[in-house]
Amino acid sequence: MATQHIGIGMAGFGTVGTGVWETLERNGQLISNRAKGAFSLSIKKAAVRDINKKRIENAPSELFTTDWQEVVNHPEVDIVVELIGGTDTAFDIVAAALKLKKPVVTGNKALLAERGKELFALSRDYDTPIHFEAAVAGGIPVIKAVQDSYVGNRIETMSGIINGTSNYILERMTTAGLDYQTALKEAQDLGYAEADPALDVNGWDAAHKAILLATLAYGFTVPPEEVYVRGIERVRTIDIDFATKLGYAVKLLSVIRVHANGSVEIRTQPSFIPQSHILSSVNGVFNAVAVRGDASGEALFYGRGAGKEPTASSAVGDLVEAAYTFVHAAGHRGFLPYAENGKVLPIDQTETAYYVRFEVEDRPGVIAEIANILANDGIGISGTQSPVDPEHPDKDFCDMVFLLHTCPFGKLRETLKKCEALDCSTAEPVVFRIEKLATD
Amino acid sequence: MATQHIGIGMAGFGTVGTGVWETLERNGQLISNRAKGAFSLSIKKAAVRDINKKRIENAPSELFTTDWQEVVNHPEVDIVVELIGGTDTAFDIVAAALKLKKPVVTGNKALLAERGKELFALSRDYDTPIHFEAAVAGGIPVIKAVQDSYVGNRIETMSGIINGTSNYILERMTTAGLDYQTALKEAQDLGYAEADPALDVNGWDAAHKAILLATLAYGFTVPPEEVYVRGIERVRTIDIDFATKLGYAVKLLSVIRVHANGSVEIRTQPSFIPQSHILSSVNGVFNAVAVRGDASGEALFYGRGAGKEPTASSAVGDLVEAAYTFVHAAGHRGFLPYAENGKVLPIDQTETAYYVRFEVEDRPGVIAEIANILANDGIGISGTQSPVDPEHPDKDFCDMVFLLHTCPFGKLRETLKKCEALDCSTAEPVVFRIEKLATD
Repeated sequence: MATQHIGIGMAGFGTVGTGVWETLERNGQLISNRAKGAFSLSIKKAAVRDINKKRIENAPSELFTTDWQEVVNHPEVDIVVELIGGTDTAFDIVAAALKLKKPVVTGNKALLAERGKELFALSRDYDTPIHFEAAVAGGIPVIKAVQDSYVGNRIETMSGIINGTSNYILERMTTAGLDYQTALKEAQDLGYAEADPALDVNGWDAAHKAILLATLAYGFTVPPEEVYVRGIERVRTIDIDFATKLGYAVKLLSVIRVHANGSVEIRTQPSFIPQSHILSSVNGVFNAVAVRGDASGEALFYGRGAGKEPTASSAVGDLVEAAYTFVHAAGHRGFLPYAENGKVLPIDQTETAYYVRFEVEDRPGVIAEIANILANDGIGISGTQSPVDPEHPDKDFCDMVFLLHTCPFGKLRETLKKCEALDCSTAEPVVFRIEKLATD
Repeated sequence: MATQHIGIGMAGFGTVGTGVWETLERNGQLISNRAKGAFSLSIKKAAVRDINKKRIENAPSELFTTDWQEVVNHPEVDIVVELIGGTDTAFDIVAAALKLKKPVVTGNKALLAERGKELFALSRDYDTPIHFEAAVAGGIPVIKAVQDSYVGNRIETMSGIINGTSNYILERMTTAGLDYQTALKEAQDLGYAEADPALDVNGWDAAHKAILLATLAYGFTVPPEEVYVRGIERVRTIDIDFATKLGYAVKLLSVIRVHANGSVEIRTQPSFIPQSHILSSVNGVFNAVAVRGDASGEALFYGRGAGKEPTASSAVGDLVEAAYTFVHAAGHRGFLPYAENGKVLPIDQTETAYYVRFEVEDRPGVIAEIANILANDGIGISGTQSPVDPEHPDKDFCDMVFLLHTCPFGKLRETLKKCEALDCSTAEPVVFRIEKLATD
C-alpha cells in the first residue's frame, strides 16, 4: 500500500503547537512505522497572530500566515488542529473545518464545554469527527478510555483532580503551611499559574473538563449554566489543618455521578477526600481521574495534566486516529450525542456530608446560635471546633467549623442562609464536600 | 444507515465469557447507541468443554457446542473471542479465525507472549487484527493507551504491578506481618489465587503481560526465553520489614526500559520501590502500570487487574473496536510488528542497586567473608544488617542482608556465586532490585 501523505493545518502555534511540530519532527518516522506505512503526517500551514515571531528553528517562513481561513481552506490541509483557545474565533475555525469535512483536533475545553452543542451538531451533519483528548488532563488519555475502552460500561462515577494549578496551591498549603495568596504567588512564579489565574482557581477550568467527561459518559451536551462550580479562593490553612487531622486531603474535586433516575450530578468544588484513597496521593501539578464503570470497576488515570509536550502527545494521538479514519474513509469515529434527553441533577438534590466554616465575631452564644439553627432544620452535627490559641485561651475566635451529616445540598443552603443572617456572621459560610469515593 | 448485526463466536465460556455475555445483555443497547446505531453485537455460538453445565439463565441451548471449529466456521460469526487459555488449542482457534479473516479478541497473555510471532504474522498476512486489551491488567485500558493514545511517543519506560495475586500476598505480608505461606493460603481461600498458583507467584503471569507491553511499545515480538523472571516465593517478612524501615515497599515489579543502543530491558522480580512513588500505593489485587513517554511524561494506569467483569469490560471494548473496523471495512487496526530487528538487553547488562539476603550458618567471620568477596569484586556496600533478638543477643543468626550499590547484574551474579560457594552459605542468595523509578 502506498503511503498517503496527510496534511495538517494548525490554528495557533504557541506552546502546544510547537510541541506538536517537535513531536512530529522527532517521532514522525516512528509514527509512520506504527501505522504500517499507511500514512505520514506533516504540518502544511499554521495561522499565528505575529508572523515575525521566531518559533521553530527549521520551519519554513511560508508555513505561517495570520489568516486562519488560509489554513482551513488550504488544499493540502486534510486535518485542522485548533489550539488558539477562546470561544469565538476558535468556534469559527472549527465550524469552517467541519463544513469542509476536515476532521478537527482541539485542545480547547472551554470551546467544547460552552459551545459543544452547536459543534457536535455540525460534526454529525458533516459526518466529520472532532477529537479532543488534548482538552482534558493533558497527557492522560482519559477521553479515549471513557469513549472507547469503556464503551461497554455504564459509567457510574468519575472523580477528577483536573486542574494542576489548584492542586499545586492546595498541596503547598498542606505540606508547607503556606496561606492561599503565598501559594498562588509561588505557582505564578513557577509558571504553573497564569498572571490572571481566574479560570484555574475559580474552578471553571476543571468544570469545563468535567462537562466534557460527562458529555462522553452520558451522551448529551451538558449546559454549563446547570453545572455547580466553586473554586479554591476561600480555602484557608485552618481548613486544611482540620482536614488533615481528620484523615482527609483537601482537593479541588470534580464529581460526576449518574443517579437512579438517570440524571447526572456534575459539580466542582473543594472537597475532603480520605487519605486512604489513591486520589489523595495526586500531588503537585499532576492530574488524575478515577472512573468507575459497572463492568470495569474502579480505575484511575494519572499523569501530567498540562504542559507543552504532554498536551502535544494527546494531540498527536488524536491526529493519528483522525488520519487512520481519513485514509480508510472509515466514517465518524468521534463523539456524537446519543442521549439528548440527558439531564443534569439540580445541585440542591445532591447529597454529601459537609465541612462548613463560619466566619463570625466572637461573643457569648455564637456557637449556640448556629447550633440551634442547624438543630431546628434537622441537620446533624458530627463535630465542631473553633481554634484555640493555647497561650491565649481568652482570645477571640473568628472561625467556627462544623462537620455536618449527609443531607441534600439545597437543605444545607437554606439553613446556611439563616446562619449568615445572624448578627455574628461576617461572611458567607465556606462549604467543603466530604466525599465518599467509590471503592470496591 | 442501517444497523449491521455483528455476530460473535466465543471459544470458552467460563467466568470471563459469562461476563462478556452479561455485559452485552445489560449494556447492548447503550453500546449500539454509542456506535450511533452503526452496528449491534450478539453472541451466535460458543464452544465449551461441558455442554450440560448451566451457565446463563436465558441462553438458548443451541448456543453451545463442544467443537470450536463450529464456532469459528459459523457463517454468522464475524468476530471470534478466545478465552479458553493455554497455548495449544487456543493457538489453533486464533489461527483458524485469522485465516478466515475474522478479527480476534483474546484475553490470553500466555498465548500471545509465547506464540505471538506466529500469530502476528498470520494477522499481517490475512490483514485481520488481534485485539488483546483483556490480556493485560483486566479492566485497565493500558494496551490502548500504549498502542493508540501514545502512538506519538517513544516509550522510555514502563513499570508495572501486573499480578494481583502476588501483590495481595506481599501486601498482607507487609501490613499483617503474615509469612509467605500463610498469606498465600489466605489468597487461595479468598479466591485470589488458584489451587495451583505457580504462574502467579513464580512471576510468569506478570512476565507474559510485560512481554506484550514491550511488544507494543518497541514493535518486535519479544522472545520469552530472553526475559528475566523471578517470583515472590522466596520473599520473607524480614525482607519486607527491612524495606519498610528504609522507606520502600516490596512489590513484584515488571520493568521495561529502552536503552540508548535501542535494546530493551525486560525483567520481572521482587523490587524495593520508594514509598513516595505512587506505585507503592497500589495495594491488594489492584494492578497499575506507570508509563513514561518522551512527550507524555509519566502517567499511571490503575485498576482491577483481573476478575469476570473488569476483564469482560476490556473484551467488550475490543469487540466494539473490531466491529467498527469490520463495518467500515477499515483495514487493520491491531498491533503488527514494525521493528523486527528489536533486541532484548541481556539481563547481565541491566543495572540497579540491590538488596541481597544471604542465608547462612552463624559462626565467627561470616560477615567478614561475605564482605571480603564483595570488596574484592568492587561491589560497594551501603548497608548491612543481621537481625538481633534483643532478649537473646547470643542467638545464632541465619540471615545476613546487604544493600549494594548500583552495578551490572552480571557482575553481581558472578560475585554472589562465590558467596554461595562459601561453607557458611545454606542457600542461593535472594536478590531484590532497588528501583529508581522515572519521576519528573
